[in-house]
Amino acid sequence: MATPTYRRKHKIHFSECDPAGIVFYPQYFVLFNDLVESWIDELLPQEGYHGVIGERRVGMPTVRLEVDFKAVSKMGDEVWLSLDVERLGGASLTLAWACTGVDGVLRMAARQTIVTTSLDTHKSIGIPEDIRDAIARAMEFAARE
Amino acid sequence: MATPTYRRKHKIHFSECDPAGIVFYPQYFVLFNDLVESWIDELLPQEGYHGVIGERRVGMPTVRLEVDFKAVSKMGDEVWLSLDVERLGGASLTLAWACTGVDGVLRMAARQTIVTTSLDTHKSIGIPEDIRDAIARAMEFAARE
Amino acid sequence: MATPTYRRKHKIHFSECDPAGIVFYPQYFVLFNDLVESWIDELLPQEGYHGVIGERRVGMPTVRLEVDFKAVSKMGDEVWLSLDVERLGGASLTLAWACTGVDGVLRMAARQTIVTTSLDTHKSIGIPEDIRDAIARAMEFAARE
Amino acid sequence: MATPTYRRKHKIHFSECDPAGIVFYPQYFVLFNDLVESWIDELLPQEGYHGVIGERRVGMPTVRLEVDFKAVSKMGDEVWLSLDVERLGGASLTLAWACTGVDGVLRMAARQTIVTTSLDTHKSIGIPEDIRDAIARAMEFAARE
Repeated sequence: MATPTYRRKHKIHFSECDPAGIVFYPQYFVLFNDLVESWIDELLPQEGYHGVIGERRVGMPTVRLEVDFKAVSKMGDEVWLSLDVERLGGASLTLAWACTGVDGVLRMAARQTIVTTSLDTHKSIGIPEDIRDAIARAMEFAARE
Repeated sequence: MATPTYRRKHKIHFSECDPAGIVFYPQYFVLFNDLVESWIDELLPQEGYHGVIGERRVGMPTVRLEVDFKAVSKMGDEVWLSLDVERLGGASLTLAWACTGVDGVLRMAARQTIVTTSLDTHKSIGIPEDIRDAIARAMEFAARE
Repeated sequence: MATPTYRRKHKIHFSECDPAGIVFYPQYFVLFNDLVESWIDELLPQEGYHGVIGERRVGMPTVRLEVDFKAVSKMGDEVWLSLDVERLGGASLTLAWACTGVDGVLRMAARQTIVTTSLDTHKSIGIPEDIRDAIARAMEFAARE
Repeated sequence: MATPTYRRKHKIHFSECDPAGIVFYPQYFVLFNDLVESWIDELLPQEGYHGVIGERRVGMPTVRLEVDFKAVSKMGDEVWLSLDVERLGGASLTLAWACTGVDGVLRMAARQTIVTTSLDTHKSIGIPEDIRDAIARAMEFAARE
């Protein structure tokens, strides 16, 4: 299997679990939001995600999500959170997410479509060129691995 | 337009918003989780959702989600959170969610597939008969409106 | 016992509970943040909390908290969330919070000190006069009850 | 200044911030709950925090908190989250927390009192001996640094 474009290991925290002792599913979206943020931080080390949002005033809202929950993740489980770029368009991109136990069992998989917007108008704008280029380079790099 | 099976009005809280001043999207899933819970509380007034989970040890995890974010919701906006039953099967059900501003603009729509599980094994079980019956009655009632 | 300055009934949600089946304590702070927001909405019905933060750019951050957790709140419990103004100063105010079961048992009590700030500089400013007046009226009203 | 008993570096995420662009304060409690959990994982590497809670059914609820928010933390800021043991009693312990920017500026300091409970009764029990011993060793180790 190919190396994902970006991933990190994570241990499921108590704070992420519900009274059933398993991940409260909205927490997955927080985890992957943080993952995308860390990935953008790596792609744009000078500016970072907070710079894109805060100073450049470019938003990256989600417009579509398709999610399959395949197996539960319990408090204390070690998992890989990974993302791949499935499609890079002019004004939107589609990421493929996976949460996989260190045991290799897929817990959750999703497809997220993100657009870039102006945070002043909340209207769609094209993906800024430097961000597009950085993502394109990450895709090439992942394809070569 | 038909009356939804269940709905409540909600004012978007500061705590639900992100640095862009709009709903942080994982919060929608918390809001709809709470909505489903309140709906089950209404369907099973004796036992409530907490009784189903806590004493009966029947879980209602989400196995699939498809979500479209159509327009932003800002801090202080008044919205309707509504749900309809799209399909009631033997071991799973599919709900249609909508978050619509009081201005009538659809902010977010989703389709959620829920299964019923034993919270001791996390394995799928059939929807308990009394819960199925209560949902079926709610569907009939909504269809008549 | 005196009527609190502001309160609302709340049923503890699944989403607010942890793997021990009781309120995950950081959720209390979200609940009371929402309570303060609803109270300000009532005090300033034209502008609302979101108007104070969003348009007027006045922040109301917490600078000090003292909290006692007295008894657990379980999923499905009905509680009262209430607040009183303990002190109204020129640039800060102190609120007393209580979460009390409908059974009368105190679950949690806290004292919160809030300052008003400019959201452009994050520096302290005096409490705007109209907000001070509205809070002073609410205190008088509560004292008369 | 002495080395704290336990600490980790953290970059403030978008998901932790509010419409003012700064940490939404209840998120500090989630961050420190995760920090205490990671510390217990380190002290009890075989069992971990999830084992103490999940299998041993020993809870570690907070009974008192005193918190001072000294300076704001913004999206993208790098901070140290640290804890020290201030007091180790027979049935409770008091931790001192600090969130300090990598710039050395203290953002938030707190004192948290934790008790150990049976998760079956939610009643206080003495701190289990192996946990007490592990904490005592961590305190000695920190004092020697």
